[in-house]
Amino acid sequence: MDLFEALHLDELSHGLANLSMFPYFDMAHYIVSVMALREQPGALQLSRVSPLACWFSSMLFCFGGAVLSAIMLAEPAVAPLSNSTSVLLASIIWYLVFYCPMDLVYCSAALLPLRLVLSGMKEVTRTWKVLGGVTQAHGKYKDSLLVMIAIGWAKGAGGGLISNFEQLVRGVWKPETNELLKMSYPTKITLIGAVLFALQHTHYLPLQKHHLMLVYTVFTVVNKSRMMLTGSSTSPFAVIESAVYKTLFAGCSPYAALTDEVDKPCIDNSTANTSTSTAAKNKDSSENGAAGKHTPVSPGKGQSESLKAKDESEETETTSCKKTD
Amino acid sequence: MDLFEALHLDELSHGLANLSMFPYFDMAHYIVSVMALREQPGALQLSRVSPLACWFSSMLFCFGGAVLSAIMLAEPAVAPLSNSTSVLLASIIWYLVFYCPMDLVYCSAALLPLRLVLSGMKEVTRTWKVLGGVTQAHGKYKDSLLVMIAIGWAKGAGGGLISNFEQLVRGVWKPETNELLKMSYPTKITLIGAVLFALQHTHYLPLQKHHLMLVYTVFTVVNKSRMMLTGSSTSPFAVIESAVYKTLFAGCSPYAALTDEVDKPCIDNSTANTSTSTAAKNKDSSENGAAGKHTPVSPGKGQSESLKAKDESEETETTSCKKTD
Amino acid sequence: MDLFEALHLDELSHGLANLSMFPYFDMAHYIVSVMALREQPGALQLSRVSPLACWFSSMLFCFGGAVLSAIMLAEPAVAPLSNSTSVLLASIIWYLVFYCPMDLVYCSAALLPLRLVLSGMKEVTRTWKVLGGVTQAHGKYKDSLLVMIAIGWAKGAGGGLISNFEQLVRGVWKPETNELLKMSYPTKITLIGAVLFALQHTHYLPLQKHHLMLVYTVFTVVNKSRMMLTGSSTSPFAVIESAVYKTLFAGCSPYAALTDEVDKPCIDNSTANTSTSTAAKNKDSSENGAAGKHTPVSPGKGQSESLKAKDESEETETTSCKKTD
Repeated sequence: MDLFEALHLDELSHGLANLSMFPYFDMAHYIVSVMALREQPGALQLSRVSPLACWFSSMLFCFGGAVLSAIMLAEPAVAPLSNSTSVLLASIIWYLVFYCPMDLVYCSAALLPLRLVLSGMKEVTRTWKVLGGVTQAHGKYKDSLLVMIAIGWAKGAGGGLISNFEQLVRGVWKPETNELLKMSYPTKITLIGAVLFALQHTHYLPLQKHHLMLVYTVFTVVNKSRMMLTGSSTSPFAVIESAVYKTLFAGCSPYAALTDEVDKPCIDNSTANTSTSTAAKNKDSSENGAAGKHTPVSPGKGQSESLKAKDESEETETTSCKKTD
Repeated sequence: MDLFEALHLDELSHGLANLSMFPYFDMAHYIVSVMALREQPGALQLSRVSPLACWFSSMLFCFGGAVLSAIMLAEPAVAPLSNSTSVLLASIIWYLVFYCPMDLVYCSAALLPLRLVLSGMKEVTRTWKVLGGVTQAHGKYKDSLLVMIAIGWAKGAGGGLISNFEQLVRGVWKPETNELLKMSYPTKITLIGAVLFALQHTHYLPLQKHHLMLVYTVFTVVNKSRMMLTGSSTSPFAVIESAVYKTLFAGCSPYAALTDEVDKPCIDNSTANTSTSTAAKNKDSSENGAAGKHTPVSPGKGQSESLKAKDESEETETTSCKKTD
Repeated sequence: MDLFEALHLDELSHGLANLSMFPYFDMAHYIVSVMALREQPGALQLSRVSPLACWFSSMLFCFGGAVLSAIMLAEPAVAPLSNSTSVLLASIIWYLVFYCPMDLVYCSAALLPLRLVLSGMKEVTRTWKVLGGVTQAHGKYKDSLLVMIAIGWAKGAGGGLISNFEQLVRGVWKPETNELLKMSYPTKITLIGAVLFALQHTHYLPLQKHHLMLVYTVFTVVNKSRMMLTGSSTSPFAVIESAVYKTLFAGCSPYAALTDEVDKPCIDNSTANTSTSTAAKNKDSSENGAAGKHTPVSPGKGQSESLKAKDESEETETTSCKKTD
């Protein structure tokens, strides 16, 4: 790849590819994940009611991807537990984030500069996890692109994909929300990463692995930092998504007559799909007498809040810290 | 088997046993399955809100049996994804059924004669799936009749058995309904098939495999066609079921005094169990002060509607087509 | 171990370790488990509505531990079905407990002396199951204490840990309750057993296996009998739990100001955690404007009833028998 050589990035990408995730990057991942759990509504109360359920939930946030991909590949779901060092590290972080005297750890980590660094480091671990999943799937299913994508995605975004069951551990059940119905930014970026790494593995993408790792890592870190600094939740793919959606899924359908309603300007581009669907749904509801029975699919207020928290908390206000200080 | 030879059916049964399911029968299975999903309440709206959740749900309708039996046998749940051709075929059909311009594909396939043929072909695939499950289980657990029945049943009726979790993908959660609580016709016929093929495999049933395949296939196809043509949902086993139920499960029990109430003529024989149970339940409720707290187990209106749709839509009215034409 | 020799218990512990669980102890386990299911609200009605769902639910009560540990270790979840003799035995017991003429079996087994013996025998099977789980995990993950504890716990208390999904089979869904949120006594004692056996296996606990088996079995049987005879549900660990909880999880936290509220005397020591949490929660609710949206984590009346029934029915009143006699 001449461009990489020209920019003297070859050495950098090699250096990055040889970076060890343990212990610093893993720690950052655990801290950001446990803080994301703590910022879920009801999680703090749970930590007082049932430390065990809280610990188990934290482990699902930290190792959800490993558990999900293990189940999908029929490998032992307890395997992550066998890595005692990681579990111990994650458990210590869980304890400090939830129960530290004076709430020091959470309040420090929630400060914008530190949170920015930690979130950036967590994004780096995403590359390694997605790549790990794709490589693992490649070992079992040589030429199946779909399996590679599925396992890479599961490994990188497992915590989000199993969130319904993670919530169940905490006694919360929100069947109307899941990451397939309305993907959050981390889930989207992980899916894109899984597709890219799977294409690279099957040589459809003419890039070297360490170059792709560099490009993908830089993109995720920069984008995450931008989102945290600007407080924006605008997905960088909103335009592409919207275009794909309009071309493929909103075409000459029974709902074609609705497209003029849909074309109204979207204030939040990332929710283009939702607004389309809501319009379609309202129309359909009025046509369909039995509509009253449907469980509403459209995300309510609760969902968007939950997803926001899941989205590793772009909002950097440390509300609970203010209370205690 | 002299009867088969006398009727010159030996050759026919050999021919049937050598029939390849790919691509035509598999296609019919995918079309009927995706149409069954489309006819679920809320599915059409979902297809506009979240094409990804809709696609995943369709795949569970098409490959649910493979996924469920894989999980039960601790084989990779992603295995169906590794068969790229099948997934591609099912995905194209999903796209055409949900998003085809002018809704041409759905409206054509929903016409009674075509739907009759497709449903018949889908019933043929059931034989192959049940037999595949029984054979697979036989390979792992030589002499366990129960495992063979369970895997054969799971493979043939997987979409129905995992319907709670398939619905969860679509944001719908109906815990009060499942196929074990109230079996639909396809689940019942698959269970019977699994029992028969398991008995044949262990030589308790003195029939050759290809003869049993012929008999079972003809029975399912004829019965399905009859049900679609007459619009009847009367199960052919209603009488046997009712007799077995009365003998084994409604006998000299604390509820024996209720049997006279139960003996009232059942208009819909297939719901004999339900009417029995409702009577028993009402009686019990009045005896039991705490009954008000029970989650109602008896199937409500929502369930029967849902099951009807699941039952691959005996109703051949193409309601949504009328709207758009 | 000199103490064991001095008390001539060495021979006794060897005898116990060589005891076969099949058939008598297994039968006692099945009877007590199926009776625990029957005493769940709504179970008796279910047995009339859907014998199949009732049977499947019973099997999950009887073999839940085996199913859960199989899933966690990526072994076939259908494996328990392959042991035809056990399944047949459990099925016969299920039939007799639910459908026996005159309800003879249930009413006899529910008499206090017989129930006491059966529950004691069931506690003995717990030792074997926990040990079996720990040994199985040790075979796969040589030196992972956590995996051994997890599998031992899952195998010994599986029925409780999967209770959400067992209830789903019966059409009941109580997401706000699970054994991690509020552990019942059997789940706690099993966890302690799993920890002890895992420590013994890794030689951290300087005890011989058969000695530990004797000590643990005697403790569980005696404690269970005491609880049944006194009708008390006071956990023998309440004091330790409370001390650990106060030291680790209620310390200098954002809620530290609440500890004086929490220190009020607890009438039921076993619910110390709950009362603490409720206080913390109320405080938090008043501080937090968004609290109204939280799904209540604190166990409601429904949960405590359900857990009581799950707890293999300490209450020995045979309410339903009175009705029918």
